[in-house]
Amino acid sequence: MTVKAYGAHASDQPLVSMDITRREPGAHDVQIDIAFCGICHSDLHTVRAEWAGTLFPCVPGHEIVGRVAAIGDHVTSHKVGDLVGVGCMVDSCQHCADCEEGLENYCDNMVGTYNAPTADEPGWTMGGYAQQIVVHERYVLRIRHPEQDLAAVAPLLCAGITTYSPLRHWKVGPGSKVGVVGIGGLGHMGIKLAHAMGAHVVAFTTSESKRADAKALGADEVVVSRNADEMAAHTKSFDFILNTVAAPHDLDAFLVLLKRDGTMTLVGAPATSHPSPNVFNLIMKRRAIAGSMIGGIPETQEMLDFCAEHGIVADIELIRADEINAAYERMLKGDIKYRFVIDNATMAA
Amino acid sequence: MTVKAYGAHASDQPLVSMDITRREPGAHDVQIDIAFCGICHSDLHTVRAEWAGTLFPCVPGHEIVGRVAAIGDHVTSHKVGDLVGVGCMVDSCQHCADCEEGLENYCDNMVGTYNAPTADEPGWTMGGYAQQIVVHERYVLRIRHPEQDLAAVAPLLCAGITTYSPLRHWKVGPGSKVGVVGIGGLGHMGIKLAHAMGAHVVAFTTSESKRADAKALGADEVVVSRNADEMAAHTKSFDFILNTVAAPHDLDAFLVLLKRDGTMTLVGAPATSHPSPNVFNLIMKRRAIAGSMIGGIPETQEMLDFCAEHGIVADIELIRADEINAAYERMLKGDIKYRFVIDNATMAA
Repeated sequence: MTVKAYGAHASDQPLVSMDITRREPGAHDVQIDIAFCGICHSDLHTVRAEWAGTLFPCVPGHEIVGRVAAIGDHVTSHKVGDLVGVGCMVDSCQHCADCEEGLENYCDNMVGTYNAPTADEPGWTMGGYAQQIVVHERYVLRIRHPEQDLAAVAPLLCAGITTYSPLRHWKVGPGSKVGVVGIGGLGHMGIKLAHAMGAHVVAFTTSESKRADAKALGADEVVVSRNADEMAAHTKSFDFILNTVAAPHDLDAFLVLLKRDGTMTLVGAPATSHPSPNVFNLIMKRRAIAGSMIGGIPETQEMLDFCAEHGIVADIELIRADEINAAYERMLKGDIKYRFVIDNATMAA
Repeated sequence: MTVKAYGAHASDQPLVSMDITRREPGAHDVQIDIAFCGICHSDLHTVRAEWAGTLFPCVPGHEIVGRVAAIGDHVTSHKVGDLVGVGCMVDSCQHCADCEEGLENYCDNMVGTYNAPTADEPGWTMGGYAQQIVVHERYVLRIRHPEQDLAAVAPLLCAGITTYSPLRHWKVGPGSKVGVVGIGGLGHMGIKLAHAMGAHVVAFTTSESKRADAKALGADEVVVSRNADEMAAHTKSFDFILNTVAAPHDLDAFLVLLKRDGTMTLVGAPATSHPSPNVFNLIMKRRAIAGSMIGGIPETQEMLDFCAEHGIVADIELIRADEINAAYERMLKGDIKYRFVIDNATMAA
């Protein structure tokens, strides 16, 4: 079937309206009418071929929410009319150790929601900037938030799980002192989630102007990282730091703020490397630098349920499909609090 | 009291025989006749002021073994005639969280065995290249090895605990696949210890010539890290990698060999930074790069007892005190299997 979508025909072209093909739902497939799709920085990197291997035409989008329009004969986990979401992946091998542990995000054969090889036309996956999508039921999440929150739920499918998973994995909770570096799409979710988990949350930003905003998001303290005295006051005090900044920056400035046995986990991947961290800062207090990528399907469901229970959604700005290119330019300037979300109903026009 | 020692008067001077002062044993002190002292690469860095802050005259040495010559009135843990050892530290604050957990090595006020501030003359600590040393009983370890092994036990006090502690902390044991990078003073102990803990041990070396040696030390497999095919065969297979190489090198080559959730721990600190690791290699499999420094006193005792039980000592070359300068030159060329140990009886000459 043919559906309207927004995508790019080449890396130097703007996104335009286009028709794409979706497969007919198979026995285990869920066909979803997409209501909203968040805009992630990965969308921009991929569309502009800033990472290797973009295939064109490219339809991005992996923060997808909507309503089930049809289900395959063997689908048991979702029914027509349900509110559902799809995140960064639409398939994986389903039998490796990672998949069996529900960590499909780490499966070597994980299939991304866009720009990943598939048997479907045209040979690679097309994402959520589209009217509909067809996805294997395993990768479809249930949404328990009230329907009026749906647009603001969309970013939970990537920004939410990408920050929730490391906070859980490194056991953040009451009694933890947690830093969140960067207050953008990922960081603003990290602050909300860590706060809801009961941690003492310190937000780090380079801009004095974000101080009040970070408090409003749930930060107990805000540190302007360019202020050496403010930084020094937190030396050796953090159990965990979630670093959401993808731009290359000085990791040592944050490593020295970790307690013994503390970990700083990076969830943003810079296009060029960070300056090399000083090994002494790791050795002297048995600290670690780690990475984390999205989260598995069971944990994504857990995150959505946690957010529904705690009334957590993203702070968003809703846009029309024909505003995507302008939104990308504003993202590059950091001019968004904190996530653009596309109203996919505007695709039909 | 005055004792004979070997040390340097300046960073560009060779080590020479000199007289130094030791304090009279206090109520909690143990006075030790030093039988042997291992030579650690840190000794050379410090004597040559390659790290900041060397105070002269400098008497290095923190792999100390010998026999108790006298004890203070309140000493209960050691008695005259006992075989004992002293490692990298001779004091710490004794009341912080690190000290209370027996992780004195991470205490902010840990006092190194040499070149650290002390109330004793001349104001900084003097190490084990000396006839005697006086140390608070808390930092004196019991040695249960047979006396004829004593010289080869000395390197356990630094090279042994520095590798034992991270292997234990990251839970190496039967079923673990463990890599040890570098086959020198630290690495050769890492191989022996990981093998004795029941792990499957893969040694990494840059030199084909060390292949047989590494097997003899207990490695199940040996990989020449310059051979890309050999390296690729181990992709995503390690639970833990102990990296003992202090020279700057490509960390990514080893990071990609870790499984999901694997950690590579660095115990060598390069004078100039490693090339910056690729963050994608951390993110894609939730891997970590960590550091570890020596080990605490209780764990050092545990390590010594473990080694005594398993018949583990270092592979050493025993030298006279007047051969120290020549030994340093050979260390710089990697011409030692695997640790020089000074026969401190030769200090008297």
